[in-house]
Amino acid sequence: MQKEKSIDHALRATWQAVAKIYNEQAAKHDSTMAVAMALLYIDAEKGTASTALGPSMGMEATSLSRILKSMEERGLIYREKNPEDGRGVFIKLTAFGIEKREVSKESVYKFNQKIRDKLDPVKIDHFFEVTDLINELICEKSIFKD
Amino acid sequence: MQKEKSIDHALRATWQAVAKIYNEQAAKHDSTMAVAMALLYIDAEKGTASTALGPSMGMEATSLSRILKSMEERGLIYREKNPEDGRGVFIKLTAFGIEKREVSKESVYKFNQKIRDKLDPVKIDHFFEVTDLINELICEKSIFKD
Repeated sequence: MQKEKSIDHALRATWQAVAKIYNEQAAKHDSTMAVAMALLYIDAEKGTASTALGPSMGMEATSLSRILKSMEERGLIYREKNPEDGRGVFIKLTAFGIEKREVSKESVYKFNQKIRDKLDPVKIDHFFEVTDLINELICEKSIFKD
Repeated sequence: MQKEKSIDHALRATWQAVAKIYNEQAAKHDSTMAVAMALLYIDAEKGTASTALGPSMGMEATSLSRILKSMEERGLIYREKNPEDGRGVFIKLTAFGIEKREVSKESVYKFNQKIRDKLDPVKIDHFFEVTDLINELICEKSIFKD
């Protein structure tokens, strides 16, 4: 009997492999995957509240603030007071940031397209059904409840 | 037209969610996911060469040596000279380590079983087809080759 493959191992190993090539790709543009990701998560037109960015990127506040600082120094973003909340800060992309955001977008598009080109769309749908179910079971805390 | 879902985003978000509950589960046993994972990657009978452990876990040497140090302090592992290589070191599990390895194994089994219980096996197979293909394309460097 073949040993059953482990879903968590596939997720971890595959994400690590993807992160590696995303970082290599970002390095070609003197950047990092984290910066490229932040560019994608910031709304190109309206900007994004700094407090919303960490949670949506799944990143802790301290790591995020280090990344935003380096992005500001590189002229990719600027900060603006949140018009709806005097204490809050909005992160906005500069023209250079918007340009670099397009580069990130293209890499993400290329990655996804290369995979989709090689596989029956039904299989991709099933892949998302599996990841959606995992997230759902985790959200409802039903995996390790005992 | 619905925006196409991003495969990389699903991988990252899902792995992060899994890592979070694995860490919570490990915390119930005063441990961490990294320690639980190392326990699983060390051969319970023969032990594992310390130099082989990092690559198989997808972990850098410095992080791994920190984890192994804490595992040694907790009495989960011990080090032995590699019989086939005088300069090399073998990591072996203590009886306590083997006991804790079983706990990790059960959590991984439970996680995988909960997912498999809820999904058609064909969908799980397709999930692995997608992750296998991604790893294959990354290995052959064909995604960002241009």
